[in-house]
Amino acid sequence: MQPNAYTGACPTRVVLDRIADKWAVLILGLLAEGPMRFNSLRRSIERLSQKVLAQTLRRLERDGLLTRTAFPTVPVTVEYALTPLGRTLAETVDALRLWAEAHITEVQAAQRAYDGRGLVMPDA
Amino acid sequence: MQPNAYTGACPTRVVLDRIADKWAVLILGLLAEGPMRFNSLRRSIERLSQKVLAQTLRRLERDGLLTRTAFPTVPVTVEYALTPLGRTLAETVDALRLWAEAHITEVQAAQRAYDGRGLVMPDA
Repeated sequence: MQPNAYTGACPTRVVLDRIADKWAVLILGLLAEGPMRFNSLRRSIERLSQKVLAQTLRRLERDGLLTRTAFPTVPVTVEYALTPLGRTLAETVDALRLWAEAHITEVQAAQRAYDGRGLVMPDA
Repeated sequence: MQPNAYTGACPTRVVLDRIADKWAVLILGLLAEGPMRFNSLRRSIERLSQKVLAQTLRRLERDGLLTRTAFPTVPVTVEYALTPLGRTLAETVDALRLWAEAHITEVQAAQRAYDGRGLVMPDA
């Protein structure tokens, strides 16, 4: 069977759900520049909690997209780096962030026009 | 101020959250082929509920990515089509789906290796 994300039971769907995620996009975008420590990642992504960062990193590690290396310093330092597989994805997800940054003005203009029509607002 | 999705308060973050979403990815991927009716979209994306489809379509419409046109048939038929802005995004998000479909075997191998290490599993 060919992988097909439109098919509900295809494992591709689960992977798509994990990579089509704003935190994964932002983390992979940073690691594309080079390995980073946990605390440095945390400081670089505002409003990302320690818990969600740890969870997202574990899932990306399990999917083979990054490696986690602990160094026996006191306290232990942990460094994350893209795998070759992660590297094939990083550019793809970074394009999403770049699109959002490049088109935010147009999106906001569209939102104002939509809201001005007085239609029912989408749920938050 | 330059748009920057790493800044917590930047509106780019909200837009990134909405486009880095598996349903948005799958819907935009279909509309890239041409306009589609609600029921046809629903049939094409397995395990997507009517409620979530309607909600996702409204948000994408509000963001200026697609148009919704109602035809005065009995019953009313509603067609969705990408806007020029949506078209600039469709290829970018489709690359995510194509990545997932192309690399699912490697991802699954990584998952088996990770789970075999007997470490704590990430939450589901």
